[in-house]
Amino acid sequence: MQTDFKATRALFDLPEGVTYLDGNSLGPLPRAAAARVAQTVTAEWGQMVITGWNRAGWMEMPMRIGNRIGRLIGAEADSVVMGDTLSIKVYQALASALEMVPDRRVILSDTGNFPSDLYMAEGLCRTLGEDYRLKTVAPEAVADHIDETVAVLMLTEVDYRTGRRHDMPTLTAAAHAAGALVVWDLAHSAGALPVDVAGGGADFAVGCTYKYLNSGPGGPAFIYVAPRHQDRARPALSGWLGHEAPFAFDLDYRPGAGVERMRVGTPPILQLAALDAALDIWDGVDMADLRARSLQLTDRFIAGVEATCPDLTLATPRNHKARGSQVSFRHPEGYAIMQALIAEGVIGDFRAPDILRFGFTPLYTDEADVDRAISTLAAILKGGLWDRPEYRQRARVT
Amino acid sequence: MQTDFKATRALFDLPEGVTYLDGNSLGPLPRAAAARVAQTVTAEWGQMVITGWNRAGWMEMPMRIGNRIGRLIGAEADSVVMGDTLSIKVYQALASALEMVPDRRVILSDTGNFPSDLYMAEGLCRTLGEDYRLKTVAPEAVADHIDETVAVLMLTEVDYRTGRRHDMPTLTAAAHAAGALVVWDLAHSAGALPVDVAGGGADFAVGCTYKYLNSGPGGPAFIYVAPRHQDRARPALSGWLGHEAPFAFDLDYRPGAGVERMRVGTPPILQLAALDAALDIWDGVDMADLRARSLQLTDRFIAGVEATCPDLTLATPRNHKARGSQVSFRHPEGYAIMQALIAEGVIGDFRAPDILRFGFTPLYTDEADVDRAISTLAAILKGGLWDRPEYRQRARVT
Repeated sequence: MQTDFKATRALFDLPEGVTYLDGNSLGPLPRAAAARVAQTVTAEWGQMVITGWNRAGWMEMPMRIGNRIGRLIGAEADSVVMGDTLSIKVYQALASALEMVPDRRVILSDTGNFPSDLYMAEGLCRTLGEDYRLKTVAPEAVADHIDETVAVLMLTEVDYRTGRRHDMPTLTAAAHAAGALVVWDLAHSAGALPVDVAGGGADFAVGCTYKYLNSGPGGPAFIYVAPRHQDRARPALSGWLGHEAPFAFDLDYRPGAGVERMRVGTPPILQLAALDAALDIWDGVDMADLRARSLQLTDRFIAGVEATCPDLTLATPRNHKARGSQVSFRHPEGYAIMQALIAEGVIGDFRAPDILRFGFTPLYTDEADVDRAISTLAAILKGGLWDRPEYRQRARVT
Repeated sequence: MQTDFKATRALFDLPEGVTYLDGNSLGPLPRAAAARVAQTVTAEWGQMVITGWNRAGWMEMPMRIGNRIGRLIGAEADSVVMGDTLSIKVYQALASALEMVPDRRVILSDTGNFPSDLYMAEGLCRTLGEDYRLKTVAPEAVADHIDETVAVLMLTEVDYRTGRRHDMPTLTAAAHAAGALVVWDLAHSAGALPVDVAGGGADFAVGCTYKYLNSGPGGPAFIYVAPRHQDRARPALSGWLGHEAPFAFDLDYRPGAGVERMRVGTPPILQLAALDAALDIWDGVDMADLRARSLQLTDRFIAGVEATCPDLTLATPRNHKARGSQVSFRHPEGYAIMQALIAEGVIGDFRAPDILRFGFTPLYTDEADVDRAISTLAAILKGGLWDRPEYRQRARVT
């Protein structure tokens, strides 16, 4: 293993006394991000004001940083651009893809997809009218439903609840063979494991950056468009910064060259600055090492929990190929158990109806974290320590 | 005048030696925003990590801050929510409005509208298909084209180039009388002058926050939905945070109550923190005072420039009622003249093809700024100082 994960851990500002296993929801603060954001605020916004768009390179950030993300997901150069939120990027990718398969009306997805992807697809179908519709099937049944009615296959590679991973190259090839295009959501893949959108044949891919890429709360999303589609993908959300010449202020829309046409409005510079600093950490990371380390940590956690917590049921596939970088267990009292765990300083999260999720992020998670999580969980379950009113009371954001 | 504009000026971190007249493009840094963003990064993201969504109130920020903006634009309580970019909010407002007037197919706008609004409308019409179309007429001809074919009238109140202001109550009433709904873009109104969306009868309103509201580069947008429409407006961009119960992770979309259904994805917390701090300044500002002061400053600038720069042609209406808080002049060499002005420390901006724009923002602009801008501009024009190759060379962002 070439990558020094002790060194990467030291680059994060982890809260004292906490074992943080929720990087699959919100990554912790990279030390360099605090300084970078402060510099962007005071030296750039404060001193350059409007001239920052040119002098500080703000206008180029969505493409420059898109290329940095591109390296982590196996994208060709200049095929990724940053902006908006993942939901917005899903809408753009779907709308563009549907327009390229004009004789079909079905978006196929699965019930393990993140709900917002499904909601955005529903909204798009309603706007498109005619007979456009979203069809959702069980994750394991997706391959069987890829047929000549499907215009676009929309899948999240790694399931946000179970950590189950779809086989991207195989499903993509099946969709292409049936004449459909594929949109991959990499929310739980980018920075979690090696991704190869080019090799896997993806037509479009989208993802967020605040999970495994540690860009901070509300960091911008990314969109990948395969080079073969870039100049015919028509953005349904046709904003001025995706125009061929934004500063000509023409009255008519003409999409810009390449993936940059997927830009919409003014990019969020403070959030992009945090992301840019967070990505510096990845310069020294080999993705194969990351994967090896992730599997070590998740295997250790699964073995430890199964040995000490008989009431928990593993929801994540044991097969390495079929999982991402999180481990989930089911328990009917999962919510209260997670609250008890958080009270003891081990932070994972809960997903309805009964999932306890734990993210293993090699950049800053180590064996001591894994072992503490196992022993704390075992103590809570053994002692019934979760069975208290304050742990059952649900917060708005769970 | 009750408002102390010397005091508000002291709350900004203005670059040394610069007269900044481009707050209509990007407002300068409020001193408190730097500290607030730093706190959000280190104490909230750094120490609370995922628990910040509850403990630091991140999840409530879009509505809480929406109400702060609401006060400045005359909105009813809980009628404004933050998120995304202005272009995205235009799309949402238009799509919702069109669905409420199902028997009509025309969006009416004007050629003075900001191009991105027109582009987004074009994109929406293409997605809707059928005979949906965008019709643009000259700004002064809008009233004559409001007829029973129009589904939605979409206007920007203050023209980004000329500063010409539409009469919101009159045009809104005319549209309503013809059976149409109205979407107002307040990009150059919010924080620039008193706005009364409730009194003016607006159905929807949208705006950005990085201009007169000083939220920093890429700060989030806002959307207003009139209370009478909130529970039947269906968001075309139906993201999970607009769902009735986002954390139930249901497979089907059900819009949430009120304007909150216009939320889409995860909100940009660092940008919202900057905006929140910037809005503190407005707590002590009376909007009538702001308007009076804005008119004093713009009148002084118009008079001074007309007296000393005969080659410049005023593009902004002289009539107080018919203008916002910027003054524009035309000159065929406007680009080079603006570059020369910036080189002398007076920052305005240029808009194609021939507009020199100057924003007058009473929170931090004073008479000395106005007088310096006049004398510098006069010297540049009199001496032909703009006629140099380096001033003619265009930057990407102009």
